Amino acid sequence: MTPEKLIESLQFRYATKKFDAERKIPAEIWAVLEHSLVLTPSSFGLQPWKFLVIDSPEVRADLSKKSWGQSQVTDASHLVVFTTRTDMTEADVDRLMDSLSSIQSRSPESLSGYRNVITGFAAAMTPEARHGWNMRQTYIALGQFMASAAALGIDTCPLEGLEPAGYDQVLGLVGTGYATSVACAVGYRSAEDKYASTPKARFPLEEIIEHR
Amino acid sequence: MTPEKLIESLQFRYATKKFDAERKIPAEIWAVLEHSLVLTPSSFGLQPWKFLVIDSPEVRADLSKKSWGQSQVTDASHLVVFTTRTDMTEADVDRLMDSLSSIQSRSPESLSGYRNVITGFAAAMTPEARHGWNMRQTYIALGQFMASAAALGIDTCPLEGLEPAGYDQVLGLVGTGYATSVACAVGYRSAEDKYASTPKARFPLEEIIEHR
Repeated sequence: MTPEKLIESLQFRYATKKFDAERKIPAEIWAVLEHSLVLTPSSFGLQPWKFLVIDSPEVRADLSKKSWGQSQVTDASHLVVFTTRTDMTEADVDRLMDSLSSIQSRSPESLSGYRNVITGFAAAMTPEARHGWNMRQTYIALGQFMASAAALGIDTCPLEGLEPAGYDQVLGLVGTGYATSVACAVGYRSAEDKYASTPKARFPLEEIIEHR
Repeated sequence: MTPEKLIESLQFRYATKKFDAERKIPAEIWAVLEHSLVLTPSSFGLQPWKFLVIDSPEVRADLSKKSWGQSQVTDASHLVVFTTRTDMTEADVDRLMDSLSSIQSRSPESLSGYRNVITGFAAAMTPEARHGWNMRQTYIALGQFMASAAALGIDTCPLEGLEPAGYDQVLGLVGTGYATSVACAVGYRSAEDKYASTPKARFPLEEIIEHR
């Protein structure tokens, strides 16, 4: 990608308020966006998340009630709910070790040092801090996902104004060890969305980037 | 960007452990990456962050001591420290309102509803929750930044294994209302970095993406 195209793509992105409810993302493009989620980097590689793609119009309608009725939840081509592991246990670390061992052909012995670093790190945090840490990883996924969609000319709207506990209930997440962090509507902007042409309000570069 | 190029770019990205210390990012490309940071989306548009670009080799050396001596801190072409607003006050909300008013030519009256939503939202959280919320926004920036760099063929290494309080001291952040969340080394991989060719360990798509 050229530098010009990158900026064009990031300028193209905006929090789409009104989606074209008739226009669906082609299956082969959606598959690429799912792949982009899988490729998200995370601390230690722990991938403390599940991404729920909500296909059912009924579930979308139920979630809409837990999102202040925002039309994006029901109108967008796709809706992804970003859920986060609520803890970081030895089982989570072992799951990663198994993955490393199988994909990178590493022996358990060669991984034991790495395993100790992660478990020591997790043990030094409170349960709330572990959940908070994991939630932040989920936002890396959100950031990469919105940038990836924009690079493909696809619109998104991040949805933080939702009731996480309500989402968890609708989605049957209670007690599963995963909880809703944030959602993202994905699709194509409606020609009627006046926000598409609203200038982006960003603080001046001089106010948010400092050199030391 | 084509879907194939997007996946290629996300596959290209990996947590670079050894940078080529001789190779610098050209100034005009770096300017684009700074611009990409400015364009990061955030909840309500509040942009609760400052990005510190550490040019000074001395400061880099001091930060290295607070990052378990990881060579990326000193060897990469650029180092960005992602700092987060530690609170969300009326002054923060007014700063955004001033920006919206000036960039989008909106009257204070037309913004008062939005202002009330944000201040009500902030008031419903504890100070810790406000800081946590802001930190998560910073991770959107991290995710978009790493994806943007990769799209330009530039390597990154996210650095969470650092001592935030130590960074805050070195960078003079204590008492400023901003605190270190995470850092990112940026540059070009060394030909000697064996991790460049290590297969990515990701959980299978079927384990982390579910349809509802």
